[in-house]
Amino acid sequence: MIRKELAADLQIKWNRIRQAMEKMGTDGCLLSIDVNLYYATGCIYSGYFYLPVEGKPWFFIKRPNGLEGEQVVYIRKPEQLADIFSEKGIKKPEKLLLEADELTYNEYMRLQAALSPKETGNATTLLRTLRSVKTPWEIEQFRISARQHNKTYAEIPSCYHPGMTDIEFQIAIEQKMRLNGSIGLFRSFGGNMDIYMGSILAGDNAETPSPFDFALGGGGVTSVPLGANSTLLKEGMAIMVDMAGNYTAYITDMTRVFSVGKLPGEAYRAHQVSLHIQEEIEQMAKPGVPCAEIYNISARIAETEGLSPYFMGTKQQAKFVGHGIGIQINELPVLTPRSKEVFEPGMIFAFEPKFVIPGVGAVGIENSFLVTETGLEKLTLAEENIIQL
Amino acid sequence: MIRKELAADLQIKWNRIRQAMEKMGTDGCLLSIDVNLYYATGCIYSGYFYLPVEGKPWFFIKRPNGLEGEQVVYIRKPEQLADIFSEKGIKKPEKLLLEADELTYNEYMRLQAALSPKETGNATTLLRTLRSVKTPWEIEQFRISARQHNKTYAEIPSCYHPGMTDIEFQIAIEQKMRLNGSIGLFRSFGGNMDIYMGSILAGDNAETPSPFDFALGGGGVTSVPLGANSTLLKEGMAIMVDMAGNYTAYITDMTRVFSVGKLPGEAYRAHQVSLHIQEEIEQMAKPGVPCAEIYNISARIAETEGLSPYFMGTKQQAKFVGHGIGIQINELPVLTPRSKEVFEPGMIFAFEPKFVIPGVGAVGIENSFLVTETGLEKLTLAEENIIQL
Repeated sequence: MIRKELAADLQIKWNRIRQAMEKMGTDGCLLSIDVNLYYATGCIYSGYFYLPVEGKPWFFIKRPNGLEGEQVVYIRKPEQLADIFSEKGIKKPEKLLLEADELTYNEYMRLQAALSPKETGNATTLLRTLRSVKTPWEIEQFRISARQHNKTYAEIPSCYHPGMTDIEFQIAIEQKMRLNGSIGLFRSFGGNMDIYMGSILAGDNAETPSPFDFALGGGGVTSVPLGANSTLLKEGMAIMVDMAGNYTAYITDMTRVFSVGKLPGEAYRAHQVSLHIQEEIEQMAKPGVPCAEIYNISARIAETEGLSPYFMGTKQQAKFVGHGIGIQINELPVLTPRSKEVFEPGMIFAFEPKFVIPGVGAVGIENSFLVTETGLEKLTLAEENIIQL
Repeated sequence: MIRKELAADLQIKWNRIRQAMEKMGTDGCLLSIDVNLYYATGCIYSGYFYLPVEGKPWFFIKRPNGLEGEQVVYIRKPEQLADIFSEKGIKKPEKLLLEADELTYNEYMRLQAALSPKETGNATTLLRTLRSVKTPWEIEQFRISARQHNKTYAEIPSCYHPGMTDIEFQIAIEQKMRLNGSIGLFRSFGGNMDIYMGSILAGDNAETPSPFDFALGGGGVTSVPLGANSTLLKEGMAIMVDMAGNYTAYITDMTRVFSVGKLPGEAYRAHQVSLHIQEEIEQMAKPGVPCAEIYNISARIAETEGLSPYFMGTKQQAKFVGHGIGIQINELPVLTPRSKEVFEPGMIFAFEPKFVIPGVGAVGIENSFLVTETGLEKLTLAEENIIQL
């Protein structure tokens, strides 16, 4: 019923979800959001996936999508769920998890009314926590994305020609991305994350604060509130390229800095500090290390180097240096001073210590790392020094 | 405070919202979803926009976004709203509209708890209804999008070379789109509408049903459940290009058909029937005409021509022939047999009578139309016959 290469992976995931639900005293979870369906079923469809704490999972689908078999049931609307549960002899859940941070209010209310559990809990919290630790198949998907991400980044210098704007540069890079297999879609968690394929910040546009939870912002154009803003690329300007590694469903995240001509010495020095911060984190990060520690060490080095006013922005400074990545660009854990999470083997995260130098632009680094049993493995391997265009 | 060219437009929109709220006996609406913020404030930010039925609107913003003045208040979290209302002397709403079909369950519950109105209503329904009738400024935005959309479509034949796949063809078109000003983002209403910049359907991929509410589907690739599926473009194949007109925040929608070499006569005949259906609708549609009538006339002509089995798909037939367009690709009204809506001056919709011919591909037409006082005005003006590549 499920594509063979995925079957083993889905078993791992279902077992993890079931174990967590058992601990919570939950009877089942009903999923319908694209990223959770992809995680739990290997495909995206219109309908629901129901995983009981015991027994086989059920696929309630609204339209044909290639799934078939005993566990697949056609459904038109959520109000049919109670009857389907009765007909199929599925135990009605007393405590049910629903995607409370992803379903709309009205969808949630309809599902709750349809199955009338005594209690509901938050499937979003559970799934986001479980999704932060990747399975072997998922790690393999990241490796594919990273490989293509590296390939695209090696082609970036060929995208530049003098006299172009940041947007024209971005469009040329987007084409390389797509030809190298980028799926185009760039999934994120939470509302209003209006970003398209990533961001290019040239010169002082890097100082413009982001209205949302991004490391750096950029003014954007028309109805896009982020990123490139039609800046003409000029001598002495740093250009930060933070384009998505969306070559499989699992997104790698990588930032590199390019320059038009030479930059002022301060920019190179700040860039080296970013690389130094990265080295320090690579030395100490491993399972058991608190994520908050990553932020604190990074901020402390920036301070020691006298670069605090430029760390993660100027006018508005992001209080974070990285984030989990996965099917969405902003997964758990988060690397903030208040983060409660602790590194575990199988976590994959983006680490992005960056500085914004007024009059020059953004410098720094971002790579995607896998937490192994003993430390970190860097997945994104493009040249890390500032590359002159 | 607001960009000057938008101020008059916002007044029109605020008046419409206020009038509707007065009729409903509602005290105010609180908006925070990107498309509603763009509609009601001209920009997208993190925070809330509160419009009381009487008195000035309020902008509650989480981060600096260029808005300033007496009506702008900084906020960290929704729980501060009650105190802010007291401090600023804003009347607490007894009946409050919240975006029930867009906010997540948890966001909605937090806002409801923060302002504890006696009653809540659905701001999504109200805004979607009001947004279906466009203002003069919005119509101007569509004209800009349509102009660039036409320009891109005229360049499509230059994107083709023999031996390419549907995805390579799409990537070449995407680049033209971006160079002609496409904003990249392609906003839609509802969950799981995982579509990227539009869709290209070549040959029998047009028969693959969509899991979501699209006219036609396509198998997609990896974790994209829609659209191009790596089909090699071959002699005798129809290629349907339905790429977004996202050149401003207001999206025009247009479909054209291209062929590799000649197609079988049946495909040209079905294409002509689509054009004929379009002509019939252009003759009769005007303010006061029920949207359901548009579907019924279209389906009747398809039947008369013996083409019902191919109308709007084969294996799964979409029971609709068009939809409102705006900041999102799927706005109101919908042109279905059960549609309750009636055309009004200022509505803008996409009309897309299409046929899928097994062994050949999809043929037909899609254009964006403005409902004027007396009839329809076609906004998308590219060549309508099947173009041989």
